[in-house]
Amino acid sequence: MKSSESQFIKQIRQMFHNNSNTEKGIGDDCAVIPFSDKEVYLITTDALVEEVHFTLKTTSFKTLGRKSIAVNLSDIAAMGGNPKYIFISISIPKNVSEYDIIDFYDGVKEISSEYNISLLGGDTTSSLNHMFISVTAIGVCKSDKILYRSGAQPGNFIYVTGTLGDSSVGLSLLSVEHHSISTSSDSIIRQRLIEKHLLPTPRVKEMNYLNSHYKIHSAIDISDGLSTDLSHIIGESNVGAEIEWNKIPISKELKKTIQKENIESHVLHGGEEYEILFTSPDNINVNEFYKRTNTRLSRVGKITTSQDVYLLRDSERKLLLPQGFDHFMK
Amino acid sequence: MKSSESQFIKQIRQMFHNNSNTEKGIGDDCAVIPFSDKEVYLITTDALVEEVHFTLKTTSFKTLGRKSIAVNLSDIAAMGGNPKYIFISISIPKNVSEYDIIDFYDGVKEISSEYNISLLGGDTTSSLNHMFISVTAIGVCKSDKILYRSGAQPGNFIYVTGTLGDSSVGLSLLSVEHHSISTSSDSIIRQRLIEKHLLPTPRVKEMNYLNSHYKIHSAIDISDGLSTDLSHIIGESNVGAEIEWNKIPISKELKKTIQKENIESHVLHGGEEYEILFTSPDNINVNEFYKRTNTRLSRVGKITTSQDVYLLRDSERKLLLPQGFDHFMK
Repeated sequence: MKSSESQFIKQIRQMFHNNSNTEKGIGDDCAVIPFSDKEVYLITTDALVEEVHFTLKTTSFKTLGRKSIAVNLSDIAAMGGNPKYIFISISIPKNVSEYDIIDFYDGVKEISSEYNISLLGGDTTSSLNHMFISVTAIGVCKSDKILYRSGAQPGNFIYVTGTLGDSSVGLSLLSVEHHSISTSSDSIIRQRLIEKHLLPTPRVKEMNYLNSHYKIHSAIDISDGLSTDLSHIIGESNVGAEIEWNKIPISKELKKTIQKENIESHVLHGGEEYEILFTSPDNINVNEFYKRTNTRLSRVGKITTSQDVYLLRDSERKLLLPQGFDHFMK
Repeated sequence: MKSSESQFIKQIRQMFHNNSNTEKGIGDDCAVIPFSDKEVYLITTDALVEEVHFTLKTTSFKTLGRKSIAVNLSDIAAMGGNPKYIFISISIPKNVSEYDIIDFYDGVKEISSEYNISLLGGDTTSSLNHMFISVTAIGVCKSDKILYRSGAQPGNFIYVTGTLGDSSVGLSLLSVEHHSISTSSDSIIRQRLIEKHLLPTPRVKEMNYLNSHYKIHSAIDISDGLSTDLSHIIGESNVGAEIEWNKIPISKELKKTIQKENIESHVLHGGEEYEILFTSPDNINVNEFYKRTNTRLSRVGKITTSQDVYLLRDSERKLLLPQGFDHFMK
């Protein structure tokens, strides 16, 4: 495969052009299918592949179980839904033991209990060399509360939950050969960044609170990096954006770990953050939000009429191009 | 992994015991979740793994696209539903080209048009060595027409669609080193058996017809072999069964290709047939069924009160134990 994932998905999308009014398909975090008069089901599928998304050298089976569910719940949170059901398709090579798989399902069970979701099925097969995990998650959302990527409007404020770059730095810390990591950072700080990568928190309660208290016009989860995921919002909504560097939330752990000149690439382009980027016309009370959810919320910019994304830093105004994580470009 | 797939699934099922009245989970061909007052959604996930379920040496990408959908539609047919939506999670190694993947999606598109289903999403990632394809299919079924494995009752007749063993022989023909294959069989016959393996027909219209004209008490699709899948019906329904060897439908192509002493193992234990085994109290008009669907239907035995399955052959009556295909035992 030589083309990028997004180009390729565009091609497939054209092949399966869908004119239905009752279903929405490829091109957002979740598909939408009818449920009751006032509700829809949101459906998403995300895969984790050994030696592409994770390595068993640095990830425990329990962590893998949790993460494979978490990344799917993040998609449902980004569309404004409440996760309900999961299905797990797992392919297991011979070197993985039954005890490992029970550990994996322990992680699945733990996160399922926390989010009150039910494992309803899946497929368990063998594989020759590597583990492959594909999860389908189904959530419920009020029909008038679905958050699409395509709803951003000029004048909307752009918000981001949590802090950015931590997962990307955590991934770097996991791979010892990475050069830009200062070795002076202490082990608790390193551990917190690594945990942000291995154990992301799907922002379900956060998006529930926001969706019921404010007008949210568009949303996406940051799985491919701020620059790439913002470009999806911009592209689908046919608008532009301005982001202020000084407003982007960066953790003190990241600042202590990474040399100043390397911060920008982790924060702007680092993938697998699983924070939510959303736009709203409302001036959201971020202190009240923190009190309710224990999660930071930052207003990082605004939606404009131009088709471009600009990064404002000091007196500079430069184009911010998508440079996020793309599995095909690795 | 040392335990068999069914033992393992039992263990996972116990971990995720589900008491809900509105959803049914692990342990049938599909999960069931609520939809409208009179309908439910049926959901199934089936994976195809390179060098486990298929090899690119003998399977074209278009065929692979068709088959990865067909095996999922078969599960929905077995539960009495009509397929509506599919989601494809696919991991692609570097040696697979974009043209190959377009061919794959051509196959997906072809079968999607035939069954009037929509591709609504999925995940596309890279993989290191092998292709992984996991499909989730969603169908709709009337709430009072769901066909579970657990509904078989003593006195029910046991029926099978199509013919058995063809797919299993087709798979053998694909692997040249197989010894029991007579090389005298002509190429058209060989091709038909191989097609039965590579291009199974999900019995959607057949089960729709049967489910609306007759009382069907239980059903399952034959993906692991007659002996194994019948044992699932028996186990879930807490009954027994008698199968008459002479009534089991065997194609003339199979008889011409396989030596007599090798027929039994293909017919009784061969997997991936994707025919439907079901039980009914009704004396179904198989000629009328054939006229309507162009598919054979055979009454092969009956459900008994004992907990065992017996095969009646000539004057012999012997226990039929599950010896079907198990991905973990390969």
